[in-house]
Amino acid sequence: MTDKIYYNGNIIKREDAKVDIEDRGYQFADGVYEVVAFYQGEPFTLEEHMERLVFSAGEIDIETPSAETLIKEAKNYMQETGYADRNAKLYVQVSRGVASRSHAYPDGLEPVIIMKAGPLNPNPEEYFQEGVKIITLPDERWSRCYIKSIALLPNILAKKKAKQADAYEAVMSRDGFITEGSSSNIFIVEDDTIITPPATNYILNGITRQTVIDRLAPELGYEVIEESIPYYTLLKAEQVFLTGTTTEIMPVVQINDKVVGDGKVGAETKEIFKAFRELTGFVRGK
Amino acid sequence: MTDKIYYNGNIIKREDAKVDIEDRGYQFADGVYEVVAFYQGEPFTLEEHMERLVFSAGEIDIETPSAETLIKEAKNYMQETGYADRNAKLYVQVSRGVASRSHAYPDGLEPVIIMKAGPLNPNPEEYFQEGVKIITLPDERWSRCYIKSIALLPNILAKKKAKQADAYEAVMSRDGFITEGSSSNIFIVEDDTIITPPATNYILNGITRQTVIDRLAPELGYEVIEESIPYYTLLKAEQVFLTGTTTEIMPVVQINDKVVGDGKVGAETKEIFKAFRELTGFVRGK
Repeated sequence: MTDKIYYNGNIIKREDAKVDIEDRGYQFADGVYEVVAFYQGEPFTLEEHMERLVFSAGEIDIETPSAETLIKEAKNYMQETGYADRNAKLYVQVSRGVASRSHAYPDGLEPVIIMKAGPLNPNPEEYFQEGVKIITLPDERWSRCYIKSIALLPNILAKKKAKQADAYEAVMSRDGFITEGSSSNIFIVEDDTIITPPATNYILNGITRQTVIDRLAPELGYEVIEESIPYYTLLKAEQVFLTGTTTEIMPVVQINDKVVGDGKVGAETKEIFKAFRELTGFVRGK
Repeated sequence: MTDKIYYNGNIIKREDAKVDIEDRGYQFADGVYEVVAFYQGEPFTLEEHMERLVFSAGEIDIETPSAETLIKEAKNYMQETGYADRNAKLYVQVSRGVASRSHAYPDGLEPVIIMKAGPLNPNPEEYFQEGVKIITLPDERWSRCYIKSIALLPNILAKKKAKQADAYEAVMSRDGFITEGSSSNIFIVEDDTIITPPATNYILNGITRQTVIDRLAPELGYEVIEESIPYYTLLKAEQVFLTGTTTEIMPVVQINDKVVGDGKVGAETKEIFKAFRELTGFVRGK
């Protein structure tokens, strides 16, 4: 759909979008990223994403342009693509820059910032209506998962295991407590209470997660409790759903071989999904 | 020194050595690597390194050429560089390949294999004669450190902290036991016994580590005990040394603010260093 890539302030052709083999993003996973949804051309929570990008970069000592600048650049870039009025997703990555290979990074490198627009590729409607299956795995990741870094090897291995089990997602546990999915956060509903693991260093505090906690749940008259969820509590939860930029609000009706609740999408999950749809204004096929 | 890069079987110019922005090595740390030392043009433990590269790749489901093929390619490439008879290091990286961005990788991608030769840049002789300082840090890495993956973000952050403390290396602890340095393994000498942490999933089983255990120590009449080393045992060890391809055998005489032993390089460490030098045949300045 688009043959244009944003590269350090310039719009270049897709086939020219290459990075040096000594870009530290390529040899050290020395970078951070964001994925932003655009609904009919309108960015959804773009500010929150760009602020988190700047935060993640700061946590690993990479200096970026301000969130305001990145927002402006992203909007301008999207206008140049074929997605100006379409459902789309925007990938933004910042690496520390290019330097002769050495673990200890030199100070003052010029970061490499790329943006790539693509189709939103929303999940099929039946996933949202009927729910999906997840698998559970041990959380093998590092201890600073609150940074949205490109060191995603554990995540992609977990996601692949999910796909191989015909599941939508792999949800991980650390020391007996669930953390999150390989690219999503997790919520459960138990005795009419909505619960999600707290935003510690072991999870990525998703923007959609925050949207549920701060906007959707309160507007619907629910409170979300942020507390650690033991693995076995997940297995007997009445309702389970995932959140994420492209995952949106995804009901879970099967965990490994076990059916969740009565196997149907529960009332609270349905309401939150519906409210999220209204908030984003998503129209399928745009 | 060299303007030539190995790239999937071809020798290309340095300035042409670029990878696509959707190379999965760049967006997901989806790859593995090795660094091999060449002494006066002679590769040191090249077979072991290439076998480990194939092993690491296999652990994350990347299919590579055989170790034999990679060895041949590496030797041929080194002949093409300016390092054919010099002290050099060879960097080899294999990423899963290029694909439209998605956590779950498609099967059957063509891996991207690059090799880059550079000067060995041996550590100054006084480091080996007088010893170096290390700092200690919590081990923040994932739980599959036995894979030599390019997901090195925790390692480079630890190494940077070491440099900022004027230390050679940061040695990490997990659950009260030391694991390894950010790019090296660690040994201690206590009551004339040489001890190193066992090669569990929490450490990278270094080739130089194996060389000490399997060759140098036995030839000198020592046995190396592989057992977990509590953090406080490290702090009161009589001798400490690090091993690694470019670290070689590096005596440690200071841990954080504490002097190790009498602050001088101990007898066993000296002997092992000397034996390693003889084995590699290193001649400074070549």
